[in-house]
Amino acid sequence: MARAKKASEKKNDDNNIEEEEGKESLDLLLTVEWKDDDNSVVMIDQTRLPGKLVYVKCTDYRQVADAIKKLVVRGAPAIGVTAALGLALAAVQSKARTVEELMTDLDTAFKVLRSTRPTAVNLFWALERVMARAKKARTPQEARDAVLAEARKMWQEDIQANRQMGSYGASLFRDGDVVMTHCNAGSLATVAYGTALGVIRAAREQGKRLSVIATETRPVMQGARLTAFELQHDGIDVSLIPDTAVGHMMARGAIKRVVVGADRVLRTGHVFNKIGTYQVATLAKRHNIPFYVAAPLSTFDLESNPEDVVIEERSVDEVVRVGKKRVAPKGVRIFNPAFDMTPPELVTGIITEKGILKPPFEKNLKALLAS
Amino acid sequence: MARAKKASEKKNDDNNIEEEEGKESLDLLLTVEWKDDDNSVVMIDQTRLPGKLVYVKCTDYRQVADAIKKLVVRGAPAIGVTAALGLALAAVQSKARTVEELMTDLDTAFKVLRSTRPTAVNLFWALERVMARAKKARTPQEARDAVLAEARKMWQEDIQANRQMGSYGASLFRDGDVVMTHCNAGSLATVAYGTALGVIRAAREQGKRLSVIATETRPVMQGARLTAFELQHDGIDVSLIPDTAVGHMMARGAIKRVVVGADRVLRTGHVFNKIGTYQVATLAKRHNIPFYVAAPLSTFDLESNPEDVVIEERSVDEVVRVGKKRVAPKGVRIFNPAFDMTPPELVTGIITEKGILKPPFEKNLKALLAS
Repeated sequence: MARAKKASEKKNDDNNIEEEEGKESLDLLLTVEWKDDDNSVVMIDQTRLPGKLVYVKCTDYRQVADAIKKLVVRGAPAIGVTAALGLALAAVQSKARTVEELMTDLDTAFKVLRSTRPTAVNLFWALERVMARAKKARTPQEARDAVLAEARKMWQEDIQANRQMGSYGASLFRDGDVVMTHCNAGSLATVAYGTALGVIRAAREQGKRLSVIATETRPVMQGARLTAFELQHDGIDVSLIPDTAVGHMMARGAIKRVVVGADRVLRTGHVFNKIGTYQVATLAKRHNIPFYVAAPLSTFDLESNPEDVVIEERSVDEVVRVGKKRVAPKGVRIFNPAFDMTPPELVTGIITEKGILKPPFEKNLKALLAS
Repeated sequence: MARAKKASEKKNDDNNIEEEEGKESLDLLLTVEWKDDDNSVVMIDQTRLPGKLVYVKCTDYRQVADAIKKLVVRGAPAIGVTAALGLALAAVQSKARTVEELMTDLDTAFKVLRSTRPTAVNLFWALERVMARAKKARTPQEARDAVLAEARKMWQEDIQANRQMGSYGASLFRDGDVVMTHCNAGSLATVAYGTALGVIRAAREQGKRLSVIATETRPVMQGARLTAFELQHDGIDVSLIPDTAVGHMMARGAIKRVVVGADRVLRTGHVFNKIGTYQVATLAKRHNIPFYVAAPLSTFDLESNPEDVVIEERSVDEVVRVGKKRVAPKGVRIFNPAFDMTPPELVTGIITEKGILKPPFEKNLKALLAS
């Protein structure tokens, strides 16, 4: 990770996270990483992009939880890995002398980390997987080692899964395609490489020239701030449109395919993803444009029904102000749902690390998982 | 017009328009008005809302053209009346001694005002109507009087048309309805009362309790800044959502009807309106929610075909920055179309001052115009 070692360090007022500003040109963006030298979790502060590429260092799991809540790190796969690394921090920090004491400390951290975001299923999946591994340990040190090893393994697996999704998904794209994406399902939503944007990167590595149309993705502007930033960073052709221009661009015939990520996919093929995904999918259907979802299997929730999934309502402040500029009058009521649900009939295919799922999703998912 | 007479006056750096800040509570918002005492056109500076209610005074038609270009005044009906008042300014300013000289001056102003915005048809309609009236005059003074009288007549007619649209359109709404609107087709898009929001005002005057869901309407945020502002001002229940949440709110069953304005309506029922309207209409269709357009007959273009209409592309700056905050990386390509086209099959009805048009629009429009 090409991090500026000599960059100025300063305190972040909000949450006491140490900041380091990346001053050099980066070849590879790593969203989050474990640092062995000082047992810390270092992540890109995505709230500062695209203006500044700043890394924050967390040495306490509560800082990690805070970073997830405040969208310093976001994107379902990145949240999962970051939360796992947060548990590793809790394990390393813990002064427990017995396995029982350690498990009590881990359980406290588990609950704090689990409560940060309600919709992305990777968070729960990652935390439960690490906890299950810890429970098998016979000594505190064995547990500490196991938690860190499992979290680091998930970090590795995330990149591998994205590469595999890319190799499957790239076949869906043709040379010259203009591809729309919504929000950021890129390297910044994962450890690296990305899900939806990983597929685009893989297609490009196969020699296909793709252009990307990114939606701004109000209110948090992940498309404008993050997708445009990381594609520009990698030299992939990218254009930005307001969320209001999706239908117009499709009606003009400017879009060949759509690919997005997911925060949770149900066994029925219902896709929970960033608010606005459902309308992009609806418009794609109207214009006969294939609509793909790229999601690792860690994003799948095989238990829940559509009505069980909690859609996170976020602070009205995300809508009221952009930077310091107030864009809504004082006192107006605001709804700010962070996610929506796209029903399976609008989804052409779901790209996973084990292959591409086509409808009927429930039947084909069973076959894929059994393979 | 309850304008603060003693409010501080200062120069606007950009265009030398004099500003007066409204310090008192206003009972009636008048978007634009002719002032007899000093032969000026005074308008609300809509670029300053919702933060500040500021009036700007124009004493030269070029200032009026600049105000239209910069969205100080916007909304098809308001643009039409304002351009007409701009011609009146040109007539009053002109030192012409003959009718021919005056017509030359008016023609220059006509061309400058006509080139400000390409999509809203009211602009062309209003300017041509005033010019036709001027051409009948036999003396320069007669022409000056005629131009001013015609512009003022259009000002009056705009309010009347909105009231009439309201009286027809209100019947489409039921007590308790939650109504979605996009952009601002309110009093601020007209001289007063509004088209789409005029219908909502009329329904309310009939004793129906309506709630409005306003979309933000990126990039210029007319929904957040103007619709929320003016409905709050009038004590009408209003909530704001990001443009990305339209589909989610409809899928939740939260929306009973949609009503929007129009910048141009073709004889076929194709509706050109603020970017994003087409996708709101598409989603309304999917959810069987009636989608209404409120547009005075001055907004109808009986000549053009859909492919003839120029969709204005506006500056990328509207997308790149919100206030001083940059929300997109430097150098990224941006598309910023200001309008889109909603095809007639998505439109449930068009509310005009002569009645409600239902499909088939071409046939029923002929009958309406002949009645």
